[in-house]
Formats: sequence, C-alpha cells, structure tokens
Amino acid sequence: MYHSTALVTVLALILYFYMGLRVAQARARFGVKAPATTGNADFERAFRVQMNTLEWLPIFLPALWLFAIYISDWIAALIGLVWIVGRAMYMVGYAKAAEKRGHGFGVQALAASVLLVGALIAILWRLLHG
Amino acid sequence: MYHSTALVTVLALILYFYMGLRVAQARARFGVKAPATTGNADFERAFRVQMNTLEWLPIFLPALWLFAIYISDWIAALIGLVWIVGRAMYMVGYAKAAEKRGHGFGVQALAASVLLVGALIAILWRLLHG
Amino acid sequence: MYHSTALVTVLALILYFYMGLRVAQARARFGVKAPATTGNADFERAFRVQMNTLEWLPIFLPALWLFAIYISDWIAALIGLVWIVGRAMYMVGYAKAAEKRGHGFGVQALAASVLLVGALIAILWRLLHG
Repeated sequence: MYHSTALVTVLALILYFYMGLRVAQARARFGVKAPATTGNADFERAFRVQMNTLEWLPIFLPALWLFAIYISDWIAALIGLVWIVGRAMYMVGYAKAAEKRGHGFGVQALAASVLLVGALIAILWRLLHG
Repeated sequence: MYHSTALVTVLALILYFYMGLRVAQARARFGVKAPATTGNADFERAFRVQMNTLEWLPIFLPALWLFAIYISDWIAALIGLVWIVGRAMYMVGYAKAAEKRGHGFGVQALAASVLLVGALIAILWRLLHG
Repeated sequence: MYHSTALVTVLALILYFYMGLRVAQARARFGVKAPATTGNADFERAFRVQMNTLEWLPIFLPALWLFAIYISDWIAALIGLVWIVGRAMYMVGYAKAAEKRGHGFGVQALAASVLLVGALIAILWRLLHG
C-alpha cells in the first residue's frame, strides 16, 4: 500500500484548494467580476498562482504515483513534500511581486523533474529487465 | 475492483468533454478567433465553465479514487454522481448569467470536499492504526 | 503490470513539459511579462498549445489507464502514442498559424475518444456481466 504517497497527494490538493480560495477572495477584494480573469494586477497574480499550479498538477501527480509504484512509497512522499513546500513558497512570493516567484518555482520544478525522470528510468529498467 | 467509481469517472469526463464542445461552438457563434479567449461575454462564460471544471478535476478525480480505495467504491461513486449533477447545474446556470453559477458551484464544491476530507481521515487512520 | 501504459504516460508528460518550456521562451522573446498571458499573438499561440493540452490531459490520462486496466496494456499504449503524435503535430502547426492546428487536434481528439468510449463500454460490460 502507498499510504505516505496518498497522504502527500491529499496535502498537495489541500494547498491547491486554498489557492483557489485566495482567487475567490481576490475576485471580491479587487472587484474583478466573473467571467473576467484580467483587469487588476493583484488579482491576476493570485489567479496565475492557481493556474500555474494547475498546469503542473498533471505532471506532479502521475509522476509521484509512478515513482511510488516503481521505486518507493516513502521516497516519493518525501520528494512530494518538497514539491508542496516549493508551491507554498511560490504562492507567497508571487503574491508579493511577479519577480519573487522564481525560488519557489525552481524548487517545485526540481522536485517534479526528479519524480518524472526517476519514474522514466525505473519503467525503462522494468521493461528491459522484466 | 472499483467498477462504480470507474463508471462515474468516465461519466464526469464525458460531461467535461461536452463543455469543451460548447466552447468550440461559442467560438464559432460569437466570432472569437483562436488564440483569443476573451472579447465576448457569452463566449467567456462558456470558456469559464470548462476552465473552472478543469480547475476542479485534479481535486475531484484523485479524491474520488482515494475515497473509493480507502473507504468504499459505491459511496465514492454516489458522491461522484452528486459532483456531476452540481457541475451540470453550474454549466446551465453560468450559460444564462454569471450570477446563476452559485448553486451548482456549491453542490460540486461540497461533494469534492466530502471526498477529499473523507479520504484524508481514512488515510490518517490507516497510517496511525496500520 | 502496465509497463507500456506507464511509459506512454511519462512520454506524454515530457511532451507537455516541453510545451511549458516553449511558453517560458515565448514570454522572454516576445516581452510578455508575468502575470499577463495576452498582448502578443505569437506568445498567445504558444500559451494556447500548452493550455489546450492541459485541458485534454484529464480526459486522456484517466481514459488511457481505464482502457489499459479494463481492456489491454499494450493497445492502450499504442493509442496513447497516437495521441502524443497528434499533440506534437498540434504544437508544430499552431506555432506557425492558428489555422494549422486542426489536423493535430483531430488526431489527438480521435485517439482520446477511442480510449474514453472503449473504457466506457468495457466498464459497462463488467458491471452487467460481472
């Protein structure tokens, strides 16, 4: 069973859920009426935090689970925690200024890349040595 | 096996697929040429129906499956059906006016939250009592 | 085990990852500063290539895996490869002009639809004859 990876999955989704709440708050505070998603820079930064995380979730979640299944549950979960920390840094930094989103972005990109490349190598290994 | 959850997954994806078709139709009808996604309020509402559903799919699908695996296939499927109904209400309401998207949004948010919190509790229980 | 489907999953994510890199390059080259995602047609086409692929990933990946589990690992992987080829054609075509995105779009839409409808039929069969 993959309890640690399952837990990290839920924690990542809770952070992402919270980013969506911040978009709803920013919509109200800065007066950006639906269906618009532009028109106020503070709103747009909150929106892009959620959207960029959405863009990375289809990389992160499948790579996390393939890494867990083909390599190790707890190592996958550990790297997944690093991804969550990077995403939280990205959220906090980007809320201040677009220029401050770099560090968090780099941390999460590195974590996701390790999961994806690790899974790729492990799958190829199994296919060739299976 | 998780036949009920698998069926609800496919049904949710078919509804989402249909929302994409409506965006393509709205693009043609209201003359919004790709790559633009703004410029006509009717198009933008159709587009946001699809986009907001896309934003929630990475919460809904993993939470649905973790709930099914850790708790129950058919309860997960039942709550998943509620999510689909909420999403259909959201689509119909938002197509009329941005103000009419609230009820459907609330229904699907509640269903997704029950799946996510239920999965979290069940995973923690297993980790602590495993 | 589903080694072929796992490999195709990683390959699809690598192509999607590469589309994200092209958006970052286009952001720099055409001077579209974050959080903006509009203002230059060349940037917008690169951005829409990534976004449209993101829109289809929650259909493609679950349908791919349900097809693999309910029908066949290697047939799923083969259709998944067709999806990847269609997505690459879409990327190359759309980069040239919005009008040239049609063929690649059609190929990937057909591949995803075969996976989704195949999975639906196989799940219903199991539920009824299980």
